[in-house]
Amino acid sequence: MSRLLIDNGYFVTMDEQMPQYQGWMSIEGDRIAALGEGKAPEREIELATETLDGSGLLFMPGLVNTHGHAAMSLLRGLADDLALQDWLQNHMWPTEAKFTGDDVYWGSALAAAEMIKSGTTTFVDMYDHMHRVGEVVEKSGMRASLTRGVIGLCPEDVQKAKLADAIQFAKDWHGAANGRISVMISPHAPYTCPPDYILKFVEAAHELDLAMHTHMSETIAEVEQNVRDYGYRPVEHLDRLGMFGRPTLVAHAVHLNDEEIALLAERNVYVSHNPVSNLKLASGVARVPELMRAGVTVSLGTDSAASNNNLDLFQEITMAALLHKGVSGDPTVIPAAEALRMGTVNGARSIGLGGVTGQLKAGLKADFIALSIAQAHFVPLTDYISHLAYAARGSDVAHVWVDGKQLLRDGQLLTLDEEKILAEAERCFQRLKG
Amino acid sequence: MSRLLIDNGYFVTMDEQMPQYQGWMSIEGDRIAALGEGKAPEREIELATETLDGSGLLFMPGLVNTHGHAAMSLLRGLADDLALQDWLQNHMWPTEAKFTGDDVYWGSALAAAEMIKSGTTTFVDMYDHMHRVGEVVEKSGMRASLTRGVIGLCPEDVQKAKLADAIQFAKDWHGAANGRISVMISPHAPYTCPPDYILKFVEAAHELDLAMHTHMSETIAEVEQNVRDYGYRPVEHLDRLGMFGRPTLVAHAVHLNDEEIALLAERNVYVSHNPVSNLKLASGVARVPELMRAGVTVSLGTDSAASNNNLDLFQEITMAALLHKGVSGDPTVIPAAEALRMGTVNGARSIGLGGVTGQLKAGLKADFIALSIAQAHFVPLTDYISHLAYAARGSDVAHVWVDGKQLLRDGQLLTLDEEKILAEAERCFQRLKG
Repeated sequence: MSRLLIDNGYFVTMDEQMPQYQGWMSIEGDRIAALGEGKAPEREIELATETLDGSGLLFMPGLVNTHGHAAMSLLRGLADDLALQDWLQNHMWPTEAKFTGDDVYWGSALAAAEMIKSGTTTFVDMYDHMHRVGEVVEKSGMRASLTRGVIGLCPEDVQKAKLADAIQFAKDWHGAANGRISVMISPHAPYTCPPDYILKFVEAAHELDLAMHTHMSETIAEVEQNVRDYGYRPVEHLDRLGMFGRPTLVAHAVHLNDEEIALLAERNVYVSHNPVSNLKLASGVARVPELMRAGVTVSLGTDSAASNNNLDLFQEITMAALLHKGVSGDPTVIPAAEALRMGTVNGARSIGLGGVTGQLKAGLKADFIALSIAQAHFVPLTDYISHLAYAARGSDVAHVWVDGKQLLRDGQLLTLDEEKILAEAERCFQRLKG
Repeated sequence: MSRLLIDNGYFVTMDEQMPQYQGWMSIEGDRIAALGEGKAPEREIELATETLDGSGLLFMPGLVNTHGHAAMSLLRGLADDLALQDWLQNHMWPTEAKFTGDDVYWGSALAAAEMIKSGTTTFVDMYDHMHRVGEVVEKSGMRASLTRGVIGLCPEDVQKAKLADAIQFAKDWHGAANGRISVMISPHAPYTCPPDYILKFVEAAHELDLAMHTHMSETIAEVEQNVRDYGYRPVEHLDRLGMFGRPTLVAHAVHLNDEEIALLAERNVYVSHNPVSNLKLASGVARVPELMRAGVTVSLGTDSAASNNNLDLFQEITMAALLHKGVSGDPTVIPAAEALRMGTVNGARSIGLGGVTGQLKAGLKADFIALSIAQAHFVPLTDYISHLAYAARGSDVAHVWVDGKQLLRDGQLLTLDEEKILAEAERCFQRLKG
């Protein structure tokens, strides 16, 4: 079996003690075989079939983006600076209604190209035509947790067909691409799915033994509507519907009261925090420090490029570290290490991949990235955990590996044809807007 | 005289109507000679002594960073996630006390390298050993407004020497480097300079006919202290001391009441908004939408890399566009075009360089940048003003010109020795921390 030895690199492993050191790492097949501080031991040098000089590079786990809609990259910059309902009803939904499987394929490929180039190795995607997203994941070499997001505001026969589609997608794709793809079950949101319809998704998740994913409490309006329509705020509503009996990842969770935070912690619900999208759509600022204090695992998502407008998870890491300090008035909340955990190990745990990815550790999958650190914004050598959280950008990523396979080398995609993707995505958009 | 013709480029001119188009631009000597939509006219092709194919590039005015302390880049990542006074008193000030002119030179060179590479062509710098900063500006080819920032909490003879130093610096450097350097007069802040000392700076500014720059109302604590010590909030305090009788740029202005906003507008005071630094230090969120509604010219500053921790002004532009939407709950405030104006033309106006830089217009100085747009995060071609505000990063900048002279080509610095700067800055830091 091939064994890659990386020597003379700088490492941020995301281990519990958050070490950072000059060191080495060996990759055998799809896994991290060993790693350590200082020069590589003689034995590692002997075992290696290939060596990479890690000088000027910082190695860390690949980033995990826990909420998004990749295909919506086709709508980047189409409509900004608008009120949410205007944006959704007059711009997003009418254009999305025209999306074909082909659009989903090229929009998702556009997103995959951007994510790999900015250091994301694993992403969550909730959309339609999901087998086309699966094809992109398969081809790109990325790791993903995919889910058919179902809006249930439709006649019963359409509801049935959508649920069947979500179930069939799960059966066909869970465990696909050598296990790089897993599947979740997703009613889109409490405000777009009637309770009895949500119950069917919970039932399906039990039958298929899968986790669940949904949008929850993104805006104050939907929380108020939930109380009006069903008598409960969204957290209690979903809990009563049994959703939290499954491992569940909720996106946004901006508007929570103390009781809801306590219940989310008690039920081990995972929260995907999407600070850039929440700001851009003026949804508000999630109570992340309180969620963390309560013991909730909080990870980071970009949401789609239509409300962000890029997929650079380093921006979410920086935003998470900055925003909550300024809003809370406490400069000690979400320190650099915590923000990095949100973008890596917390993300992995939130989609059932703790112990699989999100850290550099012997035995874990070899999903890692290398940043070029011989740059002004990484000088001086004070603290690379700080530099990664506050100074780095996705564009600093030079190399990316997933499952031990290199997907990006010196900023060039190895598994995807970037030029073709950019051209096809532009072609799709020109047809959609026509 | 040499005349450069750029053809087939995409242009965002920052003109009043915010046009964006495929077009051409001619540069003669240090100025923009002409520009327009479509293919370059025959006459321009004939006049050109050099031609640049602008395909795949977006041209826009160079960015203007209106508040910072360049030399503090030596302290990037030294101490994060701390309360402000702990950060200042136990980490920043003790280390800065050891700064020599050499440290200021290499720290400022590190900052200049980072700023040029991320598209900033003009910057404001307030620090000590300012002639060493002047040398960096001269050598780098950048444009700058420099000012000796004086802390007046010291014996009278030291106060006198510092004031004399500030005045001498102004006499020696205002108009230097072919006019690329201008100088402002700066008492550091109302809380670090007694009122009678501030009066002497106002007097000097009148005598030298220079603008003024100061920190103001960054934290709620300093506002309260101002009221306790002097009976007025900082805006009225500085107004009574006559500062606003000079053109004045105030940094931060986070904590303002309605009367203060009205007075700042009435006195034409310029505000440098530093959103990233204000968040990181937990100072709060400035009332930027209200300032703009009142007619105040608001620009953007990074503050130093010690509280940011990079000098990428595109990050400030994005942050300004995002933050105020999320905090106000109104997704229409600070639309993309407004955020870009803050980072360009507003910045130029705030330091007396309106009509000199900050826009692409015939007759203005040729200070402009080119971004590589054949990248996933600039697709599709919906709206480049949106892409610049929400999706772009400083690392997208490929080329930079100031005064018609190219400072960056294909991401490589032409006037500064980057490798040497990184090594010297690291050496300075290792000595300082020792």
